[in-house]
Amino acid sequence: MFMTHENITSGNVDTITSNGIATITFSHPASNSLPGMLLRKLADKIREAGDDELVRVIVLKSAGEKAFCAGASFDELVSISNMEEGKRFFSGFANVINTMRKVPKLIIGRVQGKTVGGGVGLASAVDYCFATETASIKLSELAIGIGPFVVGPAVERKTGLAAMSQLAIDATSWQSARWAESKGLFNAVFPNTADMDNEVDTLAAKLAASSPEAMAALKKTFWTGTDHWDELLSERAAISGELVLSTFTRDAIASFKMGNR
Amino acid sequence: MFMTHENITSGNVDTITSNGIATITFSHPASNSLPGMLLRKLADKIREAGDDELVRVIVLKSAGEKAFCAGASFDELVSISNMEEGKRFFSGFANVINTMRKVPKLIIGRVQGKTVGGGVGLASAVDYCFATETASIKLSELAIGIGPFVVGPAVERKTGLAAMSQLAIDATSWQSARWAESKGLFNAVFPNTADMDNEVDTLAAKLAASSPEAMAALKKTFWTGTDHWDELLSERAAISGELVLSTFTRDAIASFKMGNR
Amino acid sequence: MFMTHENITSGNVDTITSNGIATITFSHPASNSLPGMLLRKLADKIREAGDDELVRVIVLKSAGEKAFCAGASFDELVSISNMEEGKRFFSGFANVINTMRKVPKLIIGRVQGKTVGGGVGLASAVDYCFATETASIKLSELAIGIGPFVVGPAVERKTGLAAMSQLAIDATSWQSARWAESKGLFNAVFPNTADMDNEVDTLAAKLAASSPEAMAALKKTFWTGTDHWDELLSERAAISGELVLSTFTRDAIASFKMGNR
Repeated sequence: MFMTHENITSGNVDTITSNGIATITFSHPASNSLPGMLLRKLADKIREAGDDELVRVIVLKSAGEKAFCAGASFDELVSISNMEEGKRFFSGFANVINTMRKVPKLIIGRVQGKTVGGGVGLASAVDYCFATETASIKLSELAIGIGPFVVGPAVERKTGLAAMSQLAIDATSWQSARWAESKGLFNAVFPNTADMDNEVDTLAAKLAASSPEAMAALKKTFWTGTDHWDELLSERAAISGELVLSTFTRDAIASFKMGNR
Repeated sequence: MFMTHENITSGNVDTITSNGIATITFSHPASNSLPGMLLRKLADKIREAGDDELVRVIVLKSAGEKAFCAGASFDELVSISNMEEGKRFFSGFANVINTMRKVPKLIIGRVQGKTVGGGVGLASAVDYCFATETASIKLSELAIGIGPFVVGPAVERKTGLAAMSQLAIDATSWQSARWAESKGLFNAVFPNTADMDNEVDTLAAKLAASSPEAMAALKKTFWTGTDHWDELLSERAAISGELVLSTFTRDAIASFKMGNR
Repeated sequence: MFMTHENITSGNVDTITSNGIATITFSHPASNSLPGMLLRKLADKIREAGDDELVRVIVLKSAGEKAFCAGASFDELVSISNMEEGKRFFSGFANVINTMRKVPKLIIGRVQGKTVGGGVGLASAVDYCFATETASIKLSELAIGIGPFVVGPAVERKTGLAAMSQLAIDATSWQSARWAESKGLFNAVFPNTADMDNEVDTLAAKLAASSPEAMAALKKTFWTGTDHWDELLSERAAISGELVLSTFTRDAIASFKMGNR
């Protein structure tokens, strides 16, 4: 895959609000990967839904049938040339996760397929996550000389340290959706998208009819102890931003660009 | 179900001590729900067993074959008319959990059937919990416009955040005893009460013959980092105590009183 | 089993380094139990591998087919006559765990069989742990009037509180390797040693070819919040060091020496 300006600027984020449910859908032609521009849009849309008095609950999903999210944009990653750019790049997912953390509304995740890197961070940062059996996950960062530093705290918060570190260390292996369910990252896993969507709709409707004050108070207690995440995830972005400049990563990227991704 | 003075004042807590094992049994005609008066008795009985030099280990159980505990008393909840009353009401389970936390003796839980709300808090606050396969659990608070704020820390301490928040958000679904076992809330699950009781007796006898000093030191390390729970659970009781006065809860209660519980 | 000077001084620790992988193997004729002298050697070997620039990743294993590690040396434990000796004895595993924690390299564990007490601590303190189906675990300390105070934090860090406290309380029961896997202590479990070794070799080779800087940064994030463990584990060693002098432990030891181990 070659660096293309098109990939960095393409993709979209849409919100549809109905009956108190804001459904936010992100899409990108490259397996729903998320370039910085799209991550900023996504954070904005989540913040808007959080502020919208008509919205009682948020559903986060991506377009298409195959991949939920391929993570950060590889095309954009290869263009990083200094630490400042690196930190800014890796702050994209940090900003989305921190926005998800701060909106006073519960967020339901809908994961219809494979999820990598930053996408696992999104699935971890929702408050309740549905998935299909095809929704395998992978934290592949170490394979290109970086690490899941930004999403690590979000993943660990849901799965505990053991599962998070397993994903981070075994960077080339997929873990199944059932594994992710057993570790707490997914709350329920379904054989197909239709079954999953039934349950997403049912829970979203229930929550849309629930007390907004009680849900806001619940959300606050769920995220107790994460007040320092603005700083923490920023520091984590800086770690990746420095590592990405290493010879190791440069070589790995060159190898990938040769078709060995 | 209508508010009855009888339900608020009925129920009992008994302790039988034998061979170093204090078996504390609570009972209430309404599915072992726990009105404030009964919660105070329960805390007292646990404290007494903690102070009794003849007691080496405590077994906590409830009467009957069907429900372990239906949680707080609905009849009492509907009578709350201001924040102070609300906070006092929700402090009932907080006091029991804090008492369980502080007694220098290990507490074994025996859960023979369904468990809701505060009852899940009790099952979480024991140090080792046995259950039967019928012991499904539910945190139903959100369905009436409040939340499992008081029991949340106790549940999360055993299950982690993911399982606790799943229970809190999906307030109308039962989770199975096997699910609770996989999340760490139950340590062992049995097909029937007789099999469970064999294991309760075996472990209680072993612990009654174990070093009291070692068990007291173990208990202390298990509860490391919870010194602030007197304040935390009190703050949590205040959150529920305020939410319970909301129109949402008033309407939910009115709906339940119409037979829609 | 009678106290023998031979058991206290026997055993060995070897390091073989090849292709960036340091394989550290400890061995002791008494089921790979670890007397203080051997624990010091083990900590030294781990520290050396951590400092060796040729080493990219460490594999920790023990000799033989049957037991991974029987824990502390019983022969040495029975000779403790005062609190200072007791604390020193129990600091042996503390020092190894703290060394594992501090080396800037990922440690892969290979657990080929049963593991008890301090051995469970070692299996918990590696960063990624492979095991066979025969690798049952037990924290048996309470059975002789002490507790898994030193290894507790390492076990809890991987399994959470519920599983750690279950092991500590039910001190005479083995938990299966599959149970340990479900709790996060083992990351993967295999039907036999050959299958396990294939995967150990594969992951070690992958990590030996990964970015050392990224792995060092990962290791640091994995162990975030454990900076106080030098003091914590030392305090924990003092708890065991005092309990081991109790009449309870003396009697338990006398009973074991009569062949009732």
